[in-house]
Amino acid sequence: MHTHPFKLVTIIAEPVLESRLTSELRQLGATGWTVVEGRGEGSRGIHAADIPGVNIRIDSIVTPDVAERVVQHMATHYFAEYEVIAYVSDVAVIRSNKYVTQSRETR
Amino acid sequence: MHTHPFKLVTIIAEPVLESRLTSELRQLGATGWTVVEGRGEGSRGIHAADIPGVNIRIDSIVTPDVAERVVQHMATHYFAEYEVIAYVSDVAVIRSNKYVTQSRETR
Amino acid sequence: MHTHPFKLVTIIAEPVLESRLTSELRQLGATGWTVVEGRGEGSRGIHAADIPGVNIRIDSIVTPDVAERVVQHMATHYFAEYEVIAYVSDVAVIRSNKYVTQSRETR
Repeated sequence: MHTHPFKLVTIIAEPVLESRLTSELRQLGATGWTVVEGRGEGSRGIHAADIPGVNIRIDSIVTPDVAERVVQHMATHYFAEYEVIAYVSDVAVIRSNKYVTQSRETR
Repeated sequence: MHTHPFKLVTIIAEPVLESRLTSELRQLGATGWTVVEGRGEGSRGIHAADIPGVNIRIDSIVTPDVAERVVQHMATHYFAEYEVIAYVSDVAVIRSNKYVTQSRETR
Repeated sequence: MHTHPFKLVTIIAEPVLESRLTSELRQLGATGWTVVEGRGEGSRGIHAADIPGVNIRIDSIVTPDVAERVVQHMATHYFAEYEVIAYVSDVAVIRSNKYVTQSRETR
């Protein structure tokens, strides 16, 4: 089975940012994503009263170009103001055409 | 600490497919998996009424051989009919014996 | 965009272990983590009455050194007694300083 090298971009953020982030992901060229809710602690330290913070985890399979744009976008627009984490890993996918934007704008 | 190279297979699918998929994973040689519920959008576009679709994410650590079989199985039996995503990444595990089928059929 | 190679440590365990595990992660040098709830089956076989077991998945981005310590810790303190899975994958992160302990102990 032939697989194709793609990037998995993972973003962990406050739930209030979900629709903004997924909208931006689409604009940056992502064609799909999954959102899972979780809780956690970030590097700014323990949350008040030891209550773990609620967050969302967004996973999106994208081309290397789109991954680069997403990472750049996160660094420019989020990292100074928000407790947001973004990381990229290598994945092998089948059906690689699912993860490439096909002039979505014109539909 | 000595670790062993394995594959992490991730499948994202409609919730209705969960028991079928996990049953097939077992038949294909996976010895365990985790299922997490999420929501998301796929490459077929925005869901009706802007309601994000509910999905499940299945993660399973398997040998490269089993990963190959799972990927082949997904491509053959799911990709034409279902909005299913499958991807494979490299992971290092300890206790590698946990992820290899030990004649489960004979128990 | 310059990214830095880090490790993503994933631990899958019983929910009752969450606070113990995250406390130990912090002691071992992790500066943050995300916890997601799921269900699953492990290599010890099918759960009684076909009820899938509830579990938690803890993800933490750490330096290679911390990943090594966490893996060693899991092997020493959990693998004999608990149905725990731990694996490590490579990720590229921006803002690498978020994932390095900065003398947290002295705060």
